[in-house]
Amino acid sequence: MKRTAASGTTVTATPATVTALIDEFAALSEPRSGPGVTRLAYTPLERRAHDVFTERMRAAGLRVWTDAAGNTIAERQGTVAGLPAIGTGSHLDSVPNAGTFDGVAGVVAAMEVARLFTENAVTHRHPLRFVVFAAEEGARFGQACTGSRIAAGLTTAADLDRFTDAEGTTLREAMRGSGIDPDRVDEATWMRAEWAAFVELHIEQGSVLDSSGTGLGVVDVISGSTRFRVDLHGRAAHSGGTPMELRIDALTAAAEIVLIAEELASDDEHDGTRVTVGRLDVEPNSITTIPGDCRLYVDVRDVDPARQRATADEVLARARTVADRRGVGFRSDMLADASPVALPQLVRDAMAAACDQLDRRYRILPSGASHDSQMISRVCPVGMLFVPSLNHGVSHSPDELSTAEDITSGIEVLAATLLSLDTGLQTG
Amino acid sequence: MKRTAASGTTVTATPATVTALIDEFAALSEPRSGPGVTRLAYTPLERRAHDVFTERMRAAGLRVWTDAAGNTIAERQGTVAGLPAIGTGSHLDSVPNAGTFDGVAGVVAAMEVARLFTENAVTHRHPLRFVVFAAEEGARFGQACTGSRIAAGLTTAADLDRFTDAEGTTLREAMRGSGIDPDRVDEATWMRAEWAAFVELHIEQGSVLDSSGTGLGVVDVISGSTRFRVDLHGRAAHSGGTPMELRIDALTAAAEIVLIAEELASDDEHDGTRVTVGRLDVEPNSITTIPGDCRLYVDVRDVDPARQRATADEVLARARTVADRRGVGFRSDMLADASPVALPQLVRDAMAAACDQLDRRYRILPSGASHDSQMISRVCPVGMLFVPSLNHGVSHSPDELSTAEDITSGIEVLAATLLSLDTGLQTG
Repeated sequence: MKRTAASGTTVTATPATVTALIDEFAALSEPRSGPGVTRLAYTPLERRAHDVFTERMRAAGLRVWTDAAGNTIAERQGTVAGLPAIGTGSHLDSVPNAGTFDGVAGVVAAMEVARLFTENAVTHRHPLRFVVFAAEEGARFGQACTGSRIAAGLTTAADLDRFTDAEGTTLREAMRGSGIDPDRVDEATWMRAEWAAFVELHIEQGSVLDSSGTGLGVVDVISGSTRFRVDLHGRAAHSGGTPMELRIDALTAAAEIVLIAEELASDDEHDGTRVTVGRLDVEPNSITTIPGDCRLYVDVRDVDPARQRATADEVLARARTVADRRGVGFRSDMLADASPVALPQLVRDAMAAACDQLDRRYRILPSGASHDSQMISRVCPVGMLFVPSLNHGVSHSPDELSTAEDITSGIEVLAATLLSLDTGLQTG
Repeated sequence: MKRTAASGTTVTATPATVTALIDEFAALSEPRSGPGVTRLAYTPLERRAHDVFTERMRAAGLRVWTDAAGNTIAERQGTVAGLPAIGTGSHLDSVPNAGTFDGVAGVVAAMEVARLFTENAVTHRHPLRFVVFAAEEGARFGQACTGSRIAAGLTTAADLDRFTDAEGTTLREAMRGSGIDPDRVDEATWMRAEWAAFVELHIEQGSVLDSSGTGLGVVDVISGSTRFRVDLHGRAAHSGGTPMELRIDALTAAAEIVLIAEELASDDEHDGTRVTVGRLDVEPNSITTIPGDCRLYVDVRDVDPARQRATADEVLARARTVADRRGVGFRSDMLADASPVALPQLVRDAMAAACDQLDRRYRILPSGASHDSQMISRVCPVGMLFVPSLNHGVSHSPDELSTAEDITSGIEVLAATLLSLDTGLQTG
């Protein structure tokens, strides 16, 4: 066992154990949902994944509870009474037809750190908390990071009727269906006094680390995300009986907006801006009917908060112009709006020091995706550690891939980071 | 009762009876399918609608049978043995979220003519056949007029595995599920010697009659329709983690193709051409995932067969160019291809004479939509009689509207046309 500068303790993880845990979670997917993993937010399947976490952590001797937002927390006691907790973790819900690493890698890392600390009788002054956030993906309800937003006080019980899924189920109804009492959600808010720091391990979901061959990633800033829905109302009519000049086609209007969004994000002034129309619903979606209604879902990401909001406003303004010119009814609704977050130097330095201590290569990089840590930054200092994504950085896809070796390396750095924070934080 | 030049007999229909029948069929709609009527081809619900027709026609004293394609035919005997039949009818299936008149108006007209002829003891030399074709709408399987195509020998048992619906059910499986034996389909082919003429009453599904205030319509040509599917394969990836320049977005490619189709059909050389992308499926269709796959369904209609095929070819060629430029995988499949049909003067003249006889205004016009009569024109001379569509001619939509008075007027002209053909046809 290596000596460390900070705590003197390191642990060694094994790729085979990591792979076995990843596979165990991958098996929990909706039947007949097509390729990849489908384990949506606030479904019985997400709850089963949390149960797997709970059982393993209890077996490792930790106290485990699920809070009023559906977040599951396992605590390993510290040696000094009354200190705030140092946390790590991620999420276990997925988008439809997802890969097996997004969120899961960070939860598996937390589970392995807890197990290895127990096996190696590692002690720490602060309590360590291993967290699985509920409902991180915005795929089902439009809003991302619902569990961590509730923990951070950013989403409250009053908001739960605002979000509905494709079947018309509200967030409130979905929570109740998962055995969570939505009226008690506000009890899940984290107290600042209880938390000293939080570190999340996550796959990069981009190709910077893999293409540059630089090993692990230490995140300096998490992109903001502004999400909105655009409803276009044209006139459904027979494809044969209606001359081109008499049509009010919602899909041709939607097509213009899709291309405007792409063009805007691709110009010189938007280097780093990412605009995506990821979802488009067409009604009645029949080959012989001119589409009467289209609903677009737009996601604007940026590391610059002013440019992020200006881009969203410009997409909306130009979309409205398209609709007006075509005589198409227009309505837009804001779904979510989170600013970029610069992560504190304190935790970045602890991760960098841990990489140096263990002789692991790393680079500093921004995160294009939003993460639970972004919300938790309202509560305490947070850090993010990325492991490389292969296959061109593909994520939210069955082709998502990270190696067990890279995740194992990340687990060892995460463990060292937590112990370094435990020693270094001026909270005792 | 008025005297007629041809047969000396007319009948008087009543709007209230027409409305009651329209409403009876409108009530047969899939539960929880949203607004309007959903009664798709080769479903138990379409069969129930055929059963209503069967019961009513038996009550009117006719012999009724359902053929091996699921078409239902009711026969009223003629006074001269061995003459070929004169037919009328339409269809009872619908697109998803349809109106209540498309197809139904022509079936109700047939039912009313049969009932009125029985009540008024009208006789005719030829047998009259009242027909409900199965599966006229292409919405479910991509191919329109399946029942009449089988009657015309244009679709055979060997074709039934080529078509699948959105759930992956083949046409063969759907027929079997509706109690039809797909292996016997070829027995439903109509013999030319058995048929003298066929007249279909249908709503216009356009706004020419309503906007010009010209009453009924006598169709001179039915547009052809070329339908194909385009599959685009990009790369699903995280909306935040993937820079614009590294994306292979299937939806932005699809959006370009949608606009190309619209632009092409709207230029000066395509007056009368109608190109529609009525259906677009996006995968995985999640707000935070760049679309990996899109499937477009394109319908090209024209009264000019050469321009129809050239337009379809050009949309396909330009779509492929878009895909190639974007690095998106491209595949296309032809779904259906029917040429325009010029309707014979013989039946047009009989309809026009019937309008004159009853003092009904009419105009000659083309049909943008395809119809069962187009297929039946392979078997015998056919005619089409249009009643006005209100609400800008909207069809394939819950807003579809024709008045009971206009349909009643059409029924009276249809009855007179059938009797005129009965007298005038040189088949006895």
